[in-house]
Amino acid sequence: MLIVKKFGGTSVGDKERIFNAAKRCMEDYKNGHDVVVVLSAMGKTTDVLLEQARDINPKASKRELDMLLTVGEQTSAALMAMALGSLGVPAISLNGFQVPMQTTAVYGSARLRRIGCERIRHELEARKIVVVTGFQGVNKYGDYTTLGRGGSDTTAVALAAVLHADTCEIFTDVDGVYTADPRIVKTARKLDEITYDEMLDLATAGAGVLHNRSVEMAKKYGVQLVVRSSLNDSPGTVVKEEVNVERMLISGVALDKKAARISVLGVKDEPGIAFRLFHLLAKRQINVDIILQSIGREGTKDISFTVDEEEADTVVELLEKNKENITAQSVQCKKDVAKLSIVGAGMMSNPGVAAKMFEALYSARININMISTSEIRVTVLVDEKDGEKAMNVCHEAFGLAE
Amino acid sequence: MLIVKKFGGTSVGDKERIFNAAKRCMEDYKNGHDVVVVLSAMGKTTDVLLEQARDINPKASKRELDMLLTVGEQTSAALMAMALGSLGVPAISLNGFQVPMQTTAVYGSARLRRIGCERIRHELEARKIVVVTGFQGVNKYGDYTTLGRGGSDTTAVALAAVLHADTCEIFTDVDGVYTADPRIVKTARKLDEITYDEMLDLATAGAGVLHNRSVEMAKKYGVQLVVRSSLNDSPGTVVKEEVNVERMLISGVALDKKAARISVLGVKDEPGIAFRLFHLLAKRQINVDIILQSIGREGTKDISFTVDEEEADTVVELLEKNKENITAQSVQCKKDVAKLSIVGAGMMSNPGVAAKMFEALYSARININMISTSEIRVTVLVDEKDGEKAMNVCHEAFGLAE
Repeated sequence: MLIVKKFGGTSVGDKERIFNAAKRCMEDYKNGHDVVVVLSAMGKTTDVLLEQARDINPKASKRELDMLLTVGEQTSAALMAMALGSLGVPAISLNGFQVPMQTTAVYGSARLRRIGCERIRHELEARKIVVVTGFQGVNKYGDYTTLGRGGSDTTAVALAAVLHADTCEIFTDVDGVYTADPRIVKTARKLDEITYDEMLDLATAGAGVLHNRSVEMAKKYGVQLVVRSSLNDSPGTVVKEEVNVERMLISGVALDKKAARISVLGVKDEPGIAFRLFHLLAKRQINVDIILQSIGREGTKDISFTVDEEEADTVVELLEKNKENITAQSVQCKKDVAKLSIVGAGMMSNPGVAAKMFEALYSARININMISTSEIRVTVLVDEKDGEKAMNVCHEAFGLAE
Repeated sequence: MLIVKKFGGTSVGDKERIFNAAKRCMEDYKNGHDVVVVLSAMGKTTDVLLEQARDINPKASKRELDMLLTVGEQTSAALMAMALGSLGVPAISLNGFQVPMQTTAVYGSARLRRIGCERIRHELEARKIVVVTGFQGVNKYGDYTTLGRGGSDTTAVALAAVLHADTCEIFTDVDGVYTADPRIVKTARKLDEITYDEMLDLATAGAGVLHNRSVEMAKKYGVQLVVRSSLNDSPGTVVKEEVNVERMLISGVALDKKAARISVLGVKDEPGIAFRLFHLLAKRQINVDIILQSIGREGTKDISFTVDEEEADTVVELLEKNKENITAQSVQCKKDVAKLSIVGAGMMSNPGVAAKMFEALYSARININMISTSEIRVTVLVDEKDGEKAMNVCHEAFGLAE
């Protein structure tokens, strides 16, 4: 078997954890498997490097930021190869240049274009464990690029795809994918299996286990993902196309407290206003989530939408600047809101799921600000103070508890 | 003009020093010059990384050590490019892969083979300051290599050579090359000029300002070196082929306290013994300095030589193991010794320099253990406790004081 194993920053945060991860790799190796390990930077390294850069130049070029950040994974990869070496397992570390992981030219949020397999295959044939730096690649100018958030997961899935790996294990600090965040919902239950689509909607809805880019890629190339704990031997959660067991109606509840609601009030009720508004945001690569349009007073309308809390100030500033262009009377921002989502493939063939959710929230006296739905997901915006309670009542209403 | 500027670890040790160095580069840039900057890793970064590696695997492979160490210069290079950016100067950082700095395959002590100039020239033509990682390169397998001690100086001189730079400035924490270490000899004087050969002998004799590999290369390719302080505007010391001023007899005194004397006693007085002995050391890449052979008792002889103090234990162990092969009766090691050297191109045409040195030491009641001379250098081995006094009396005897 060819196994790709990815360890996140906390899973290689110190010497003990590095050895712990190395031993997991050694087990598979000793059982005769080929092992490729993908690593993130150790612990908070990336944040520390970013802080260092900001201190020197708050507007540092993204090219130089990538040049700086890539040292994080190179450090953990080299140390991992040394740890494997000290366990008597031949290992070699390769960075974005050496694989090579060719990407688009965009610094800070590059996309993978082509991955060279020759060197990796050569080292695997020589019976080495190959340790690859996650998150990074090299563009056509021969410069380092980084893949943006969740980049190391994407590296692992992409490598699993091009190497036709039998499985891609994502090691993290939780046991797998849960029906809800166990820190908030005490009765949350670990799922044995989940479909790509459900995982995708959960990821988008704020469940931080996997980044949706990596799940999208896994779905596209049919890579079987396993989300496992780096701290114990629990089998984790398998993410794949179809799941075998009788489906629950809902597989999980996710809460995203980092949402902000922007309201653009009193815009003229004429065609093209919404286009102009969201085009402004799209040009700045700002992701907009739930959108709601309502009738205002005297031939005007109000447009509300949610964005990532971190981007809220930028959005307000941008809209204030373009107030005339979008014919707005005022722009408001509310940051103390949370997005609550229920996700489940079973939803498609069962009407009334949304109604059941609304009922549960109503019984708990929780007010719903906005609503958005997809085929297998219902998302509502609630006040941030109600978020955790809302998550618990939904979890209970759909019988997700252990 | 094309100027190569090299800053050592202490000269980029923190934010303030990075900006200080960046401003020196900006001055030349604003005066219309092309500037290439070569950097070492910040402060003690390399030591910290080595310690981290040792903690994980004391016998880590040299390939992985190089993979780890190269992050040091990449970090300082990226931060320097950001600092220049924040000063409004366009800059780009390039690592060993990107230049590329092609080296031999030996990890940990690679030699430069070929340097690609295309990318650097391209960036200089776009009026950018090019920041290059010192100390590192890439071998034919596409792996990182490091150049060993003094590697960043070598990188700077090599770049100056291939780019046909007008001058190569080595910034350090001293004002230039002194007639003696000012911490030991209070009256030491800064030299305005010095020849390659003198600098080479001073470097070999333990004056830590420049590594002899970089001086050798500068001499070979006729690169004019300037040793300057990164902390002030003092003009520093120019190192070149010929110096114009009327030559002093001696240009400097150097003291190396990190020497150890190894004595191999009672070896048979027959041909081939010395060859076998030093061949053993050469195979291990151990540098031997002063060698002395004397007649022992009953048809035997004693061979003494000096090595770097750090390698003394290895040497003793090696010789003890091969005692029979080299026909030695015993091996002794004395670590509390120091090498004192006087260096000066004027020596060649002035006999009696060595005698004058011995006289000065005799007057100060300092015992000489061993003697070695070259065309422009006299080195003696003294007890370590006498080292600093010996340096002072020689400095005075040759009238080097200010």
